[in-house]
Amino acid sequence: MNLLPAAFLGTTGGPESPFAVLGLPYDGTCSYRPGCRFGPRAIRDASWGLENYSPDLDAEFAAGAVEDLGDLDLPLGNTPRVLENIGVAAREARDAGKRLLCLGGEHLVTYPLVEACAESHPELNLLHFDAHADLREDYLGERLSHATALRRCLDAVGWERVCQFGIRSGTRFEFAWMRKHRTLYPADAEGVRQALTRSRGPLYLSVDLDVFDPACVPGTGTPEPGGIDYLAFSECLQEIAASRREVVGADVVELSPPFDPSGISAALAAKVARELLIVMGARS
Amino acid sequence: MNLLPAAFLGTTGGPESPFAVLGLPYDGTCSYRPGCRFGPRAIRDASWGLENYSPDLDAEFAAGAVEDLGDLDLPLGNTPRVLENIGVAAREARDAGKRLLCLGGEHLVTYPLVEACAESHPELNLLHFDAHADLREDYLGERLSHATALRRCLDAVGWERVCQFGIRSGTRFEFAWMRKHRTLYPADAEGVRQALTRSRGPLYLSVDLDVFDPACVPGTGTPEPGGIDYLAFSECLQEIAASRREVVGADVVELSPPFDPSGISAALAAKVARELLIVMGARS
Amino acid sequence: MNLLPAAFLGTTGGPESPFAVLGLPYDGTCSYRPGCRFGPRAIRDASWGLENYSPDLDAEFAAGAVEDLGDLDLPLGNTPRVLENIGVAAREARDAGKRLLCLGGEHLVTYPLVEACAESHPELNLLHFDAHADLREDYLGERLSHATALRRCLDAVGWERVCQFGIRSGTRFEFAWMRKHRTLYPADAEGVRQALTRSRGPLYLSVDLDVFDPACVPGTGTPEPGGIDYLAFSECLQEIAASRREVVGADVVELSPPFDPSGISAALAAKVARELLIVMGARS
Amino acid sequence: MNLLPAAFLGTTGGPESPFAVLGLPYDGTCSYRPGCRFGPRAIRDASWGLENYSPDLDAEFAAGAVEDLGDLDLPLGNTPRVLENIGVAAREARDAGKRLLCLGGEHLVTYPLVEACAESHPELNLLHFDAHADLREDYLGERLSHATALRRCLDAVGWERVCQFGIRSGTRFEFAWMRKHRTLYPADAEGVRQALTRSRGPLYLSVDLDVFDPACVPGTGTPEPGGIDYLAFSECLQEIAASRREVVGADVVELSPPFDPSGISAALAAKVARELLIVMGARS
Amino acid sequence: MNLLPAAFLGTTGGPESPFAVLGLPYDGTCSYRPGCRFGPRAIRDASWGLENYSPDLDAEFAAGAVEDLGDLDLPLGNTPRVLENIGVAAREARDAGKRLLCLGGEHLVTYPLVEACAESHPELNLLHFDAHADLREDYLGERLSHATALRRCLDAVGWERVCQFGIRSGTRFEFAWMRKHRTLYPADAEGVRQALTRSRGPLYLSVDLDVFDPACVPGTGTPEPGGIDYLAFSECLQEIAASRREVVGADVVELSPPFDPSGISAALAAKVARELLIVMGARS
Amino acid sequence: MNLLPAAFLGTTGGPESPFAVLGLPYDGTCSYRPGCRFGPRAIRDASWGLENYSPDLDAEFAAGAVEDLGDLDLPLGNTPRVLENIGVAAREARDAGKRLLCLGGEHLVTYPLVEACAESHPELNLLHFDAHADLREDYLGERLSHATALRRCLDAVGWERVCQFGIRSGTRFEFAWMRKHRTLYPADAEGVRQALTRSRGPLYLSVDLDVFDPACVPGTGTPEPGGIDYLAFSECLQEIAASRREVVGADVVELSPPFDPSGISAALAAKVARELLIVMGARS
Repeated sequence: MNLLPAAFLGTTGGPESPFAVLGLPYDGTCSYRPGCRFGPRAIRDASWGLENYSPDLDAEFAAGAVEDLGDLDLPLGNTPRVLENIGVAAREARDAGKRLLCLGGEHLVTYPLVEACAESHPELNLLHFDAHADLREDYLGERLSHATALRRCLDAVGWERVCQFGIRSGTRFEFAWMRKHRTLYPADAEGVRQALTRSRGPLYLSVDLDVFDPACVPGTGTPEPGGIDYLAFSECLQEIAASRREVVGADVVELSPPFDPSGISAALAAKVARELLIVMGARS
Repeated sequence: MNLLPAAFLGTTGGPESPFAVLGLPYDGTCSYRPGCRFGPRAIRDASWGLENYSPDLDAEFAAGAVEDLGDLDLPLGNTPRVLENIGVAAREARDAGKRLLCLGGEHLVTYPLVEACAESHPELNLLHFDAHADLREDYLGERLSHATALRRCLDAVGWERVCQFGIRSGTRFEFAWMRKHRTLYPADAEGVRQALTRSRGPLYLSVDLDVFDPACVPGTGTPEPGGIDYLAFSECLQEIAASRREVVGADVVELSPPFDPSGISAALAAKVARELLIVMGARS
Repeated sequence: MNLLPAAFLGTTGGPESPFAVLGLPYDGTCSYRPGCRFGPRAIRDASWGLENYSPDLDAEFAAGAVEDLGDLDLPLGNTPRVLENIGVAAREARDAGKRLLCLGGEHLVTYPLVEACAESHPELNLLHFDAHADLREDYLGERLSHATALRRCLDAVGWERVCQFGIRSGTRFEFAWMRKHRTLYPADAEGVRQALTRSRGPLYLSVDLDVFDPACVPGTGTPEPGGIDYLAFSECLQEIAASRREVVGADVVELSPPFDPSGISAALAAKVARELLIVMGARS
Repeated sequence: MNLLPAAFLGTTGGPESPFAVLGLPYDGTCSYRPGCRFGPRAIRDASWGLENYSPDLDAEFAAGAVEDLGDLDLPLGNTPRVLENIGVAAREARDAGKRLLCLGGEHLVTYPLVEACAESHPELNLLHFDAHADLREDYLGERLSHATALRRCLDAVGWERVCQFGIRSGTRFEFAWMRKHRTLYPADAEGVRQALTRSRGPLYLSVDLDVFDPACVPGTGTPEPGGIDYLAFSECLQEIAASRREVVGADVVELSPPFDPSGISAALAAKVARELLIVMGARS
Repeated sequence: MNLLPAAFLGTTGGPESPFAVLGLPYDGTCSYRPGCRFGPRAIRDASWGLENYSPDLDAEFAAGAVEDLGDLDLPLGNTPRVLENIGVAAREARDAGKRLLCLGGEHLVTYPLVEACAESHPELNLLHFDAHADLREDYLGERLSHATALRRCLDAVGWERVCQFGIRSGTRFEFAWMRKHRTLYPADAEGVRQALTRSRGPLYLSVDLDVFDPACVPGTGTPEPGGIDYLAFSECLQEIAASRREVVGADVVELSPPFDPSGISAALAAKVARELLIVMGARS
Repeated sequence: MNLLPAAFLGTTGGPESPFAVLGLPYDGTCSYRPGCRFGPRAIRDASWGLENYSPDLDAEFAAGAVEDLGDLDLPLGNTPRVLENIGVAAREARDAGKRLLCLGGEHLVTYPLVEACAESHPELNLLHFDAHADLREDYLGERLSHATALRRCLDAVGWERVCQFGIRSGTRFEFAWMRKHRTLYPADAEGVRQALTRSRGPLYLSVDLDVFDPACVPGTGTPEPGGIDYLAFSECLQEIAASRREVVGADVVELSPPFDPSGISAALAAKVARELLIVMGARS
């Protein structure tokens, strides 16, 4: 019986594969439009519409090198425990010698992922694609919120190792902070080139899908007009690939299928995921 | 300038009104499809399509008797604090001499509402319309979850003062419990009649919209086929109205607008809200 | 070249056919959710999913006996002229010896149709299926509004020749009026039987699709929970067919495709249209 | 790492399990609204919203007894080969000692399934729930079409072993045929009781979801108003369960997710699938 | 009790505020897809997803300086009276010393707004962002129609004080007229610069959302491919802000929520509204 | 009676017209998201939102020069016969002296159209706008599939007469083939200019709508991020028009209305169709 493989992008890898995909279906702190808990499932479904070959990177996605770990089972409504569970899963994967691409879920899931990654890579750099600064110290009184996601990551890697791309929404204070610390770069090849000179060390790529214009990704929690299109993002990735810097972790977050009736957001998210895995090394 | 009033069902009441509407836009523990945080807003919007007169109850909704308190501002992702805030709001309204109709939000919001109500009405009875038993002691390790909502209410009023209608989903244990304690009644006029003989004292009506068949209310978090239609529910309400038992609080919960593309769920929820307010006494 | 016929229900009739279908794409006075201007087109499209044979009426729709006149071109925003144009078209069809089934459009279009019909059939009876009484003398100051549609028809045929089915929304005054004049009947076979004894003469059938429960017809301007299902409506039609009373005109109105994402409302409307044409005589 | 199981209804069975689920994502001959190729995936996704316990059957779905075989890989556009492949898969599962529940896909997939089943059960009876007779000898010149599905099954089991429930659309000829051969029964407990006396032998249950009213299942290829609701269907299943007749195969077909924006059709299909598996014996 | 403010963009201003927002829910003359009557409500709802700070204009929206006047109550189906009522409301606000940002509704509502504005500012210039020329003398025989909106405004301010941006649809005559009178400018910073030299005096900004490409604003009545994106529009606004010309009135029209299932059109409209209010002076 | 014309773009031409529109509602081999069988109908409906005048081409669409042949009746599920029927229709139109614009339907329909066209124009060149190379020799074992469409056309006209624009998805082999044979050009004015020098002879234009970015055309079977926008496509058409090369046939394919909830894909497709007809010569 010739069955279709049951997992992401045709991944057929097993426990020994050097790369893994893990879904993090959490959206408990989204303040506007929830639904990104369904993101991982929608990305897997949409991946069937893709080819294995990437013309932009001139490389083929190597399904056999990637294991699909499925979705983590998370206790909705208890944010601290959710983050703790994610951290445990990230360390388990790391200790098993795998590089993780995580599928969100809301942006807050990046925090334990980056934290776990920084433990084993003290010189970790975070490249952060997003529409929102996410730099608040707290939001409606909560320290752990999608709106504080980057602030928590800063605690883990230090601000001098963070580069932001595509930010176009935030408080006056957040923009002042970014200007002062020069963390904000244009979301294009030149911007990535500049950012990569900021510091050495391996990279973690976090892609909040609302960095794209809502025309390209309508299905996200907080659409913010004025974003980039796929071509600009692809140029950024090509620049990263050309730099030959090591990419030790990545995530694609904030896909909210209930607001994606045409499915184009999921299609784009799946393509981003394929390209990220190729950039991380799952290529042939 | 002749402006449309800006609030629920044309409510024009002020602080001195004996009834109040309060939105509770929380869906942090929904395990399946989130989005009921947008419920209050959608119910208000849909209420414009309704007349003031109810042919079923032969009474007119008295807008002037009801104050719209708007939506409570809730810290998403911190369930204990959310419930605490709701409890505070419920007690404030109570102490101001108001009877509350709350618009959910997920079913867990019922717990602090019933708790506050039971403090001032020790003989409070809970009539619970729902597809799901919601009787778990905990869910995925959490005591505070939409799947434990009724269990928490039982703590507040005692199982001998709880009547359930329309339950058609639950664990084997939950159904055994309901059969043993005889809390389950048919969702029709006769069922309500029987239930009202169970005990005396004032009533709290909690309407989880998934008690309706998904055909009637597609826009809910966990649609469960096999539910009642509006006519059956209306007969229940007419029976309650005919009994002349005091209704001291009520809620309509689990409307999830992202899954209601045609708007019929919101229209039904708004009609339920109008009828509940009339049954609570906001009639002329 | 074997082309699909381009018109309603496979109608292939020409100018000499005794029956005609005419679309009236007007929704200028809808007070809640517009869009029924797209109703005629959606009914035609959905009619392709139907068989020609009606098991309920045990008769076959005779496509050759029906001419599709297309949609009337109406000056949106000028209600008096719209109604005037409809009246002209109705009289032209009538004078050409045709019986018309019109596809709305909002319910107000029924007024000039009934008026034209009553001119040539002074004993015309109006059977009115609707959720709303539509008996206001004016609405927001306008005499010509969807909310006054039936009141205008009363002027044309007299209240003693009007029977209403399925009404479940209206003002206290409207319900008092209906009770006083006994115009309201149950929407079932027995109700139709009673109504047909009210007076003699030919029939005009006006079907506002919101007579159906919103579960069956979500795609309508003002959904009102608590309506009938298709089986109940079919029984009414079977009763009318069995009575052998002459049906000289009919309409199906208030289908609003923008609120019908699944297309089930259009499918039901098309089936109603097929059955109405058979009841009018387009059978073989 | 605590991962959610990756398959239908939490099935955790392996190759040795006596029951299996197989998706058949084919919709190549649908004449109206395609999309049921996505049915299997949507049913699996929706199954997460369900409990394991069935109050109607007072039994628990035994996940461990069921293996999920995934979706069959089918060559779209070549109907004969598609049916051939399905037949091969059905025979493999049968020869491995499994009873199959198949998830469609269009109704034509039932033909090779019934054919394979009848080979090993010569006295096989087919219980066919559907809105459409599907009895055409050919459709638009094709012998293999969704509109000829039942006709092809008749070839396999003989008309005296076929019982139909819920049919409400067909040609005059098809209805005459059904009346003559008395294959049509009411879709309720009494109808099932009568039908089961028609002949002995094991049962195959084929559920075309358009047997339900479009209000309950909007997401199907050819919605036909006037169908049954879930309660009526559940009574049929309870009657079959009570009869203790052996159920050796089953399918749930024609779920079309693109026309199911609220997801209620998928939720109902998943519940039907759970109940069918319990009736087939996967219970504890 | 900590309630969310109930109005646009967190406006908390009262009668004494120098700026006001007013909704004009009229779509009676739309010839293609109606629904923009729901525009004002959707813009208010979407505004909750926005920050107060505008990075593009480096200024913060001053909620306290803006009063939300709600939506005007308009007699649908009687276009002359609708326009009259709008004119009355505009003059009332003006005489109360307020500058108005109006939320449409169809583009025809701009006519009475501009007319009222021109009475007190005889040198008023109209900057008109739109896909359609809207220059017809009449449309289907009506002088007052969405397709004649700009023509009516020309009567009020004179063609030499009108500048158009983004027009890409019209009759041959309309394009000839625009070329002859040189009213058409590129929709970018340079185009705005040129246009502002055309004449002196205060500005009125009218933004028909279909000036944007349908990718950015799908939810509009008459989508026309080939429009601008948000970045281009933002540059126009920055140029206007830099010119320090007085902006004495503005509107955002033609948002049609029924065609905006993902909500991105409403999100963009809300952002445009925030930026317009800042450009009008409601900044801190 | 003033009826709206019932066909595409207001075409009023008859059998003697030199241009024709023909719908090909086939999607039997789509491997991902079906539904493009509804494309022709949606394009006709959307064409009502368009003007006759094209500012980009400075020419008016001449409705009287175009006959609408309606949709071809195709036997779903039998791909070889479908293609045969299309070939027959194409030759009939050709022999009647008409130039055809066909509305898909899936891309495979292009094959018989190009084949028929090449018979009478041996020097035919194919300009192919698409996201996908479609160059496979077979797909899942089938020679006739949407994924082999262009390969089949190559058989008809020869690879040296094929130019491709916008391709961004394919196998490694397909991209190697395109690079080797230099069939791939940029999708802009310069790319078209280069391509037109490739060879002489008349042109056939095939527009797979997924050449556009999914933001512009969400409603297509296999959305692929990174495509062109309408302005780029319009420049290509203007370049073709300026070249004065003869365009003897064209098609617009792969519009899938079920994935186009906002209707913007249909609006774009209709505009493309209008421009293609003007470029083919139906101008005044």
